[in-house]
Amino acid sequence: MSTATATAPTAPAPAELRSAELERRIAQDPGGFRVLTGDRPTGPLHLGHYFGTLRNRVRLQDLGVDVFVLIADYQVLTDRDTAERLQEYTDGLLLDYLALGIDPARSTVFNHSAVPALNQLLLPFLSLVSVAELGRNPTVKDEIAHSRQSAVSGLMYTYPAHQAADILFCKGNVVPVGQDQLPHLELTRTVARRFNERYGNVFPEPDALLSAAPLLLGTDGTKMSKSRANSVPLGATADETARLIRGATTDADRHITYDPDTRPGVSSLVLLAALCLERDPHEVAAEIGDGGAAALKRTVTDAVNGHLAPFRARRAEYAADLTYVRSVLRAGNERANALAEATLAEVREAMGTFR
Amino acid sequence: MSTATATAPTAPAPAELRSAELERRIAQDPGGFRVLTGDRPTGPLHLGHYFGTLRNRVRLQDLGVDVFVLIADYQVLTDRDTAERLQEYTDGLLLDYLALGIDPARSTVFNHSAVPALNQLLLPFLSLVSVAELGRNPTVKDEIAHSRQSAVSGLMYTYPAHQAADILFCKGNVVPVGQDQLPHLELTRTVARRFNERYGNVFPEPDALLSAAPLLLGTDGTKMSKSRANSVPLGATADETARLIRGATTDADRHITYDPDTRPGVSSLVLLAALCLERDPHEVAAEIGDGGAAALKRTVTDAVNGHLAPFRARRAEYAADLTYVRSVLRAGNERANALAEATLAEVREAMGTFR
Repeated sequence: MSTATATAPTAPAPAELRSAELERRIAQDPGGFRVLTGDRPTGPLHLGHYFGTLRNRVRLQDLGVDVFVLIADYQVLTDRDTAERLQEYTDGLLLDYLALGIDPARSTVFNHSAVPALNQLLLPFLSLVSVAELGRNPTVKDEIAHSRQSAVSGLMYTYPAHQAADILFCKGNVVPVGQDQLPHLELTRTVARRFNERYGNVFPEPDALLSAAPLLLGTDGTKMSKSRANSVPLGATADETARLIRGATTDADRHITYDPDTRPGVSSLVLLAALCLERDPHEVAAEIGDGGAAALKRTVTDAVNGHLAPFRARRAEYAADLTYVRSVLRAGNERANALAEATLAEVREAMGTFR
Repeated sequence: MSTATATAPTAPAPAELRSAELERRIAQDPGGFRVLTGDRPTGPLHLGHYFGTLRNRVRLQDLGVDVFVLIADYQVLTDRDTAERLQEYTDGLLLDYLALGIDPARSTVFNHSAVPALNQLLLPFLSLVSVAELGRNPTVKDEIAHSRQSAVSGLMYTYPAHQAADILFCKGNVVPVGQDQLPHLELTRTVARRFNERYGNVFPEPDALLSAAPLLLGTDGTKMSKSRANSVPLGATADETARLIRGATTDADRHITYDPDTRPGVSSLVLLAALCLERDPHEVAAEIGDGGAAALKRTVTDAVNGHLAPFRARRAEYAADLTYVRSVLRAGNERANALAEATLAEVREAMGTFR
C-alpha cells in the first residue's frame, strides 16, 4: 500500500500470519501437503483435544491433505517409568479417531514401536544437534519441570530429535502446533536443513500450522489433561458427562457472564457450551443470566451430550468390533513402514552408509 | 582354604580375575557364549588393533564362540561432522576381517545403518538411563575431550545407550574390552538389569572379557590411532611398512634395550618385533644390542612383514573379489536383522507396545 517505509521489510511474518498464508496454500493445493500429528497413549482423549486438534485433523483430511496420525507409544516413557494400560489407551485413541471421521483409506494411523526405520533416523539426526541445543529446548525444560520421574531420562532429553524423525520420515511439510511448541518444530527444521546441507536435499523444512486452540480448563480449574482426572473424555457416556460437569469448579456469583480473565471456571464452561452450540459465548452466558451455576451446568451438559451424540454412537459401533479397529493400526503401520524404509534408503544413499 | 576370615568374602573379584574365570567357562562351553565386538569405519586397521583385539576375535571364533562383528558406521559421526570414505573404510575392514580368518559361516559381520530393529532399541533403552548417567560416563567424557566437533553432539552423548543396543540386540553375553571401557560396559549391564526388572527377563547382563592389549605406540610416539597418520596399517605393502617403520620416533642411545617407561619409542618397536616373532622383548633387544635404531628398524620391518605375509596374501586375494567381500556384509546384515527383529518382538511383548 505505502511506497517505502523504514520498517524492515524482510522481517519474518509472525507465526499467525504465516499460518494464515499456509492455510491459503493448502486450500489451493491440498494434495501438495502432508501433515504429521499425533498423541501419546497416556489416557483418554477429551474435549480439549477435540476442539484443540482433533477436529482440525479431520478438516485437513477432508480438504484432501495427506494426514499421518502417530500414536507415540515410546514417548509415554519420556516422563514416567512405565507405560500402563497401553493397549487400552491405544484402542481408545483408535476409537476416537475413527468415530471422529479419520478415514483409514485416506489417512494413516501408526505407532512408534512398530516402525523401526523411522526410529533409526534418530541416529543420524542426533549427530546433527548438539547437547546444548537439546538442553535449551523450552518444551523439554517444561516437560522436565512436570516430569513424574526422579531423574530426567535420556529419552526425554532426546525427544525433540525423535520428533524430527516422526515428522521427516514421511516428509511431512505441515505440523499443526500450539504457540508453545514452535521452538520444538524449529529443531525439526534445523535437523532437516543441516541434513540437506551436509548430505544433499532429502527433507522438507516443515511449516507450523498454528492452531488457535480454545483454552478449556479442566473441571478442577487447572489445565485440562488426559493424565489428570479433570477432563471430560470424548468416550464418556451422557451420564458420566453430566456427573463430571456437575463437579466442575465455578464461583459464588449467580449471574453468569463470559469473562475468562476474572472468572476462569465459569467462563470455561460457557465457552464449552458455546463451542458445542457454535454460538457466541457472551450470548450463551446472557441467556443463562441469573440461573446460576446449576443452570449453566445443565446447559453445558446438554450442549456437550447433544454435540457428541453422533460421535458417541459411531464410537460404540467401532468398540463392538475391536478386531477391525486394530486392523486399521496394522494397515497404517504397514504403510508407515514402507514409507520409512524408502526414506531410510534415501538417507543411506545420501550419507554413503550401507547400500 | 581358610576357615573364616575378617576380610569381606563377598567383595567382587577384580576384572582381571573375573575375566580369567570367564575364559575358563568359555573353554568349557564355547557354544554358550556370544561375543559382540566391532570397529568404527574411520580408517584402516593397524598393528595395534591386530595384537589388541583382532586376533582375539578369531581365537574366540575358533574356540566355538558365536562372534558378532559390528561395523559401527553411524558412530563415525559421534566425534566428527561427516563420515568420509565410508565405503572405502568399510571395504577395508571387511578385507582385514576375512584375511585374518573371520569365517562368515561361523561369525556375523554387520553394520549399524543396515539393522533398523537394533537401532530402535535405543528408544526404550534411553528411557532406562538418566541424562546424569550419560553425562557421567568417563568414556564419553574422554571422547568429548578428543572430539573433532565444535559442540558435543546428541549422538556422542547417547552412544553408550546405543552401544547397549549393539550388545543386547543379539543377547551378547561377553564383550572384549580394555580397562578403560569397563564403565561403558557397566551401562549396558545397567540397561539390561533395569529392563528385566521393569518388564520381565529378556536380556543377559554381559560380562567383560578384559584383553591385555600390548601398548604399541604410533610412529610419532603417541597413541596409535587409525584416524592419525601414525600407524602401520595391516593392509600396507612390505615397502610401505618399511618406510613407515623407518620414520618411527626413537632416541639418541645406540644401545637398544626394552624399557617402556624411560624409552617408550624404542621399546614399542622392540615389543612389536617381539610380538611378531613370538619372543621375549628383552631377548630381542639384547640381540640388537649396539646395532642402533637402524638395526632395530630392520629387525622390526622384517618381523612385521614376515608375520603378516600370509595375511597380506589372503587380503590381496579378497581385494580382487570385492563383490564377494560385500556379499559377506550383506549376508551378515540379513542375519543381524532377523535376530534384531526377534529381539524387538520380545521387547514389544514385554513392554506391551504394538503386537
